[in-house]
Amino acid sequence: MAAQPSADPLLVQAAKGEKVHRPPAWMMRQAGRYMAAYRKLAGKHPSFRERSETTDLIVEISLQPWQSFQPDGVIIFSDILTPLPAIGIQFEIDETKGPIIASPISSEDGLKGLQKIDLSKVLFVGESLSLLRKEVGEKAAVLGFVGAPWTLATYIVEGGSTRTYTKIKRMSYEAPALLDALLSHIAEAIADYVVYQIQAGAQCIQIFDSWGGQLTPELWDRWSKPYIQKVVCSVKGQCPAVPLVLYANGNGGLLERMRETSVDVIGLDWTIDMLDGRRRLGDSISVQGNVDPAVLFAPKSAITEAINSVVQKAGDKGHILNLGHGVLVGTPEEHVAHFFEIARSISYENHDIYRSSQIASAALC
Amino acid sequence: MAAQPSADPLLVQAAKGEKVHRPPAWMMRQAGRYMAAYRKLAGKHPSFRERSETTDLIVEISLQPWQSFQPDGVIIFSDILTPLPAIGIQFEIDETKGPIIASPISSEDGLKGLQKIDLSKVLFVGESLSLLRKEVGEKAAVLGFVGAPWTLATYIVEGGSTRTYTKIKRMSYEAPALLDALLSHIAEAIADYVVYQIQAGAQCIQIFDSWGGQLTPELWDRWSKPYIQKVVCSVKGQCPAVPLVLYANGNGGLLERMRETSVDVIGLDWTIDMLDGRRRLGDSISVQGNVDPAVLFAPKSAITEAINSVVQKAGDKGHILNLGHGVLVGTPEEHVAHFFEIARSISYENHDIYRSSQIASAALC
Repeated sequence: MAAQPSADPLLVQAAKGEKVHRPPAWMMRQAGRYMAAYRKLAGKHPSFRERSETTDLIVEISLQPWQSFQPDGVIIFSDILTPLPAIGIQFEIDETKGPIIASPISSEDGLKGLQKIDLSKVLFVGESLSLLRKEVGEKAAVLGFVGAPWTLATYIVEGGSTRTYTKIKRMSYEAPALLDALLSHIAEAIADYVVYQIQAGAQCIQIFDSWGGQLTPELWDRWSKPYIQKVVCSVKGQCPAVPLVLYANGNGGLLERMRETSVDVIGLDWTIDMLDGRRRLGDSISVQGNVDPAVLFAPKSAITEAINSVVQKAGDKGHILNLGHGVLVGTPEEHVAHFFEIARSISYENHDIYRSSQIASAALC
Repeated sequence: MAAQPSADPLLVQAAKGEKVHRPPAWMMRQAGRYMAAYRKLAGKHPSFRERSETTDLIVEISLQPWQSFQPDGVIIFSDILTPLPAIGIQFEIDETKGPIIASPISSEDGLKGLQKIDLSKVLFVGESLSLLRKEVGEKAAVLGFVGAPWTLATYIVEGGSTRTYTKIKRMSYEAPALLDALLSHIAEAIADYVVYQIQAGAQCIQIFDSWGGQLTPELWDRWSKPYIQKVVCSVKGQCPAVPLVLYANGNGGLLERMRETSVDVIGLDWTIDMLDGRRRLGDSISVQGNVDPAVLFAPKSAITEAINSVVQKAGDKGHILNLGHGVLVGTPEEHVAHFFEIARSISYENHDIYRSSQIASAALC
């Protein structure tokens, strides 16, 4: 086994690009409806907001996959919209429609309701992270997460989920100063919220620009990247040692641009080949992903093969094994268990891995 | 104006990479619910299958955007599922759930119901294409289209639309011979169907691998590309002069692989920058796209700017101007009209266009 250069958890070491003996593994949407234990708890507490805003329930749910599968990362059970009320934006979750924003912002007037983030309104997040650190100890990393400003703004402007993003895109053309003011406000609030999560115990933070891929790359450069950069810059100034991961759905066209945010890790969805991703990003940044979540419905041998392929292509440095998207509802729990068993059994020393020089040449084939 | 080297319509010339004076333009889902004329007709004929399987209605609907906007391409109003009954697969369209396949294929037994395509069951397609050619004359190209084998198979195996593609992906692992047999059968039928469309009058064929981007690139190479290649190879053997366009949703990770199908044109969705696309594909193949359909909700000046940006990046050879996805419901018709007016006003001679050598250097900036 390779020497461990720091006392950080394996996941944090890999995020920082340090030498590790195997890739750490966790899954996006690791806690949730695919688990029988979660469904049972959700039966007793049918409100999503109750489950995601009550310390005891957050901790219990976050620990369900930890207890069942021992992943290398335990992410807090929460939602990217959770901090919105703390900046003056009220929302509710409708069972079928998803989130509904009470007063979507469509004009300068709407900005008046915004406030500096009131962290006393999200104490359950900090409390939960602290408790998770105690429960997990040194055995895994505790992860916090936030939504990227653009992604959060889509909800605030559209009034909820959308398939077309036409209101916010129209705003970007018709009222660019308004959208800039909104995104700047969110960026400042999210930076404070990230620092709060880190101070409470988070050892790594994932930034979800879930709807970043809905922008053309040119417009992502204009309307998403600068505000992520604001968050990263502010957080790195205060907590330089905590790695930041950036993920976007449909990011095959955005990889090089995502690197310019100065995050430590880029999450790859499953629609891009890891070898292409490595070639395009280079090996001075870490990568996360990109196993197709649907492979967890296939026989165990196919899961093993998919893991081995991604691990080989990602190389032996700076790779966090993960799915390319969240766990799907209906995923068999024993297949999730298998995923983590295989992950733990990997040793870079004994594995057929592309080393840096091989990635360049393999990509040329 | 540049000399025209052939009597082909502008769209066909651009598809073949010939020198043209401006990019031809059409829109995916050019006819449809965003048009008042279509909604009125749909009120009288509420069944989608009636509208898409009755010669008079197909022709009337296909010509609605032609009469309103004079695009350079008139695509037949049809559906990728239209030929399924002709190969023995029955389906219906549910207003809310979308297509429902009566007997999804899940085992070898299911293959027994498949038959060689019976073109007498899709005569309305051929008749419509012939009539469209007469109506449109030399002023625009008439386009036919088909679904790619993988995309059609997702419906046949899943039983309809899906968000997760888990049944067909599981089949690819558990019963690869079955899936191969299904895809091979579809590929043969689709090749015959393309040739039939061409013989009836189609001057360019678009292949929609709508759900190709749901596969990892490695699995797209295994489960989509070979069957598209079968279609292309068969069609090119019989109709070498008719250009083929390949489009897939979420194809930012697939571009180089798509080129290997030997089609003439690659459609880019809007999630990849056209300049990156050109750089990755080279200039020996034509490109189509990739204006964000949401920009049609923005002021006309923004539409003009988006068109100019794509035209500049695509270069002055082998570019068909199009959206990166179908027209969205709710799109203002006058903005669609503006799109085509701007397209017609372009002259490569007077436009700030990247020439081939500039694309390489611009991509390096």
